[in-house]
Amino acid sequence: MQHINHDQWLNMPKRYRTHLINSLSGFKSANLIGTCNDKGKNNLAMFSSVIHLGASPPLVGFITRPDSVERHTLSNIQQTKQFTINQVSEDFWKAAHQTSARYTSDECEFKKTELTPGFINGVKAPFVHESRLKYALTLQEIMPITINNTRLVIGEISHIICEDNAIKDDGYIDIESLNTVSISGLDSYHITQRLSRLSYAKPNKVLTHISLDREQESTRQNHQ
Amino acid sequence: MQHINHDQWLNMPKRYRTHLINSLSGFKSANLIGTCNDKGKNNLAMFSSVIHLGASPPLVGFITRPDSVERHTLSNIQQTKQFTINQVSEDFWKAAHQTSARYTSDECEFKKTELTPGFINGVKAPFVHESRLKYALTLQEIMPITINNTRLVIGEISHIICEDNAIKDDGYIDIESLNTVSISGLDSYHITQRLSRLSYAKPNKVLTHISLDREQESTRQNHQ
Repeated sequence: MQHINHDQWLNMPKRYRTHLINSLSGFKSANLIGTCNDKGKNNLAMFSSVIHLGASPPLVGFITRPDSVERHTLSNIQQTKQFTINQVSEDFWKAAHQTSARYTSDECEFKKTELTPGFINGVKAPFVHESRLKYALTLQEIMPITINNTRLVIGEISHIICEDNAIKDDGYIDIESLNTVSISGLDSYHITQRLSRLSYAKPNKVLTHISLDREQESTRQNHQ
Repeated sequence: MQHINHDQWLNMPKRYRTHLINSLSGFKSANLIGTCNDKGKNNLAMFSSVIHLGASPPLVGFITRPDSVERHTLSNIQQTKQFTINQVSEDFWKAAHQTSARYTSDECEFKKTELTPGFINGVKAPFVHESRLKYALTLQEIMPITINNTRLVIGEISHIICEDNAIKDDGYIDIESLNTVSISGLDSYHITQRLSRLSYAKPNKVLTHISLDREQESTRQNHQ
């Protein structure tokens, strides 16, 4: 095992340290955030920091940095109070990564990457048509993280759009069946293979595997 | 595509809604957080909310909820200002899940799940010996997220312990080679298969694949 301490990474080249530290949190979510400004100009940006905050009310957050790419997203959300989050799947992961290029505010990431904007009534921000699981949010709060000048942007979910078959009978969404990808470090993309779902852990109780079609099966038995 | 709006999920059974909303953020990291109280009593708890906050200074955060399991972790961190984060791998994912059972503060998750505490000089909080990538953190800030009574706990990394071979020449850690797992929803565990690493995105430049041994190869060529 390699043991790296504070003094050692202070002496590492900046880019090396960035790769190293970005690998530590584990696998990250891969999402495209869609926004528009108050003149209706669309923006699309890749984020690996989208995080579940709570189910009731349904809150999701993401971390934004003070650099030029992510600033368009933040500025648009401040203007319109709306954004969409679109899970990235194996079908368009390279186009999703390309949105992180530093396009000017005049350039549209949708056009540059050949992803398709989609809209629903009541939501100004663009969805990614190609995404198989996506949702719209209303801005609730922008919390400054003063220690490193980042922000936690918190939204409440207003609409969810998902392929029918992926939603299981207990509400779990089989995002693996949607080919949703995950990220490690800054630039590595991964598909997944399920080990299993596990039962709710209790003291002195052995864990059991949950079949994805468990509820369907038991419902079927009840009807027989 | 299924379209679910606000009124619809208000009428869903609570457990169904919890599964559904927990599936939306995408794949989550799987980490065990090790702490001890000021009397030296160890605690270990599973978290799917560990998130990278920044590389310089090296900051990692996690979300904690006001329930009994996670309260031990928070209370210990408040007492000692230290914690460890230990990536969960395929070798002990079930034991890791079992730590989320509501053990009393007198019961030790290490003993109950047969995971092994490990210690280094200068860090009171226990590491998980079985973990192949782990690090110690010093508490920097506990930010209240008042909208749903959760907290963002922020730590600065002080020590990193990682298997040698996993750290690549540009600092990227191949966490897939460590069999690190990811989580979807509340209870589904996944191993991964890399699609590729992608080059830094720039406008008007075609993305290229990064070989994991790229730097090694180019170094070798330079020496020939």
